[in-house]
Amino acid sequence: MIGRLNHVAIAVPDLAAAAAQYRGTLGADVGAPRALPEHGVTIVFVTLPNTSIELMEPLGEASPLAGFLQKSPAGGMHHLCYEVADISAAAARLEAEGARVLGPVKTGAHGRPVLFLHPKDFTGTLIELEEATP
Amino acid sequence: MIGRLNHVAIAVPDLAAAAAQYRGTLGADVGAPRALPEHGVTIVFVTLPNTSIELMEPLGEASPLAGFLQKSPAGGMHHLCYEVADISAAAARLEAEGARVLGPVKTGAHGRPVLFLHPKDFTGTLIELEEATP
Repeated sequence: MIGRLNHVAIAVPDLAAAAAQYRGTLGADVGAPRALPEHGVTIVFVTLPNTSIELMEPLGEASPLAGFLQKSPAGGMHHLCYEVADISAAAARLEAEGARVLGPVKTGAHGRPVLFLHPKDFTGTLIELEEATP
Repeated sequence: MIGRLNHVAIAVPDLAAAAAQYRGTLGADVGAPRALPEHGVTIVFVTLPNTSIELMEPLGEASPLAGFLQKSPAGGMHHLCYEVADISAAAARLEAEGARVLGPVKTGAHGRPVLFLHPKDFTGTLIELEEATP
């Protein structure tokens, strides 16, 4: 069912510093910051030859990253995003197998439908599913 | 400098259960377990179309995963592995910029030279560098 690894998301306390480090120290191709107020984050994509790294900084008071960064002030890996062909079919299959789908399908950073799966159901890893571009 | 994302490693308390979940619930292509006693882990690779997920379970008393799983008994994302063209050149560049290279270059799960970078220097993310196949 899962296809490509669309991206790995890393929560960071200082997006400008993290972007500068990926661009400078690691010599990667780093995009411009984009605010996603509906997700409570500002993001930057690091484009690698085969996938992307999404650096995310909290945006606003109710950011879902606030708790994460309270526990891990230096930042850390936050979630993995796998592509699926049909997000409704994927959600139905996963729910039938007892996995908890978190909230309704939303529109993700690439303008595609996304949903999240409970990390406790997947070896402590928060998984995002994104419907791949047809 | 960094090239492809070679793999994302996830520490798990029960490799057989995690492999079964990636194969069954997530419908992915999951390989056979391999013991790497020199690294203190048993691993399974999940092959995605563009990269791999490395599921890792502790092997032996002195496994480097023991502490991680004590803090996160359900498991969790452990490290990211980026490919570089020349691992010695990468290590020299990173050390010149003040990043801490952890230990000497070893041979990794793909039989290629690898090293690790201190997570505190990279927004809480443990980074492995692997010299890409020429």
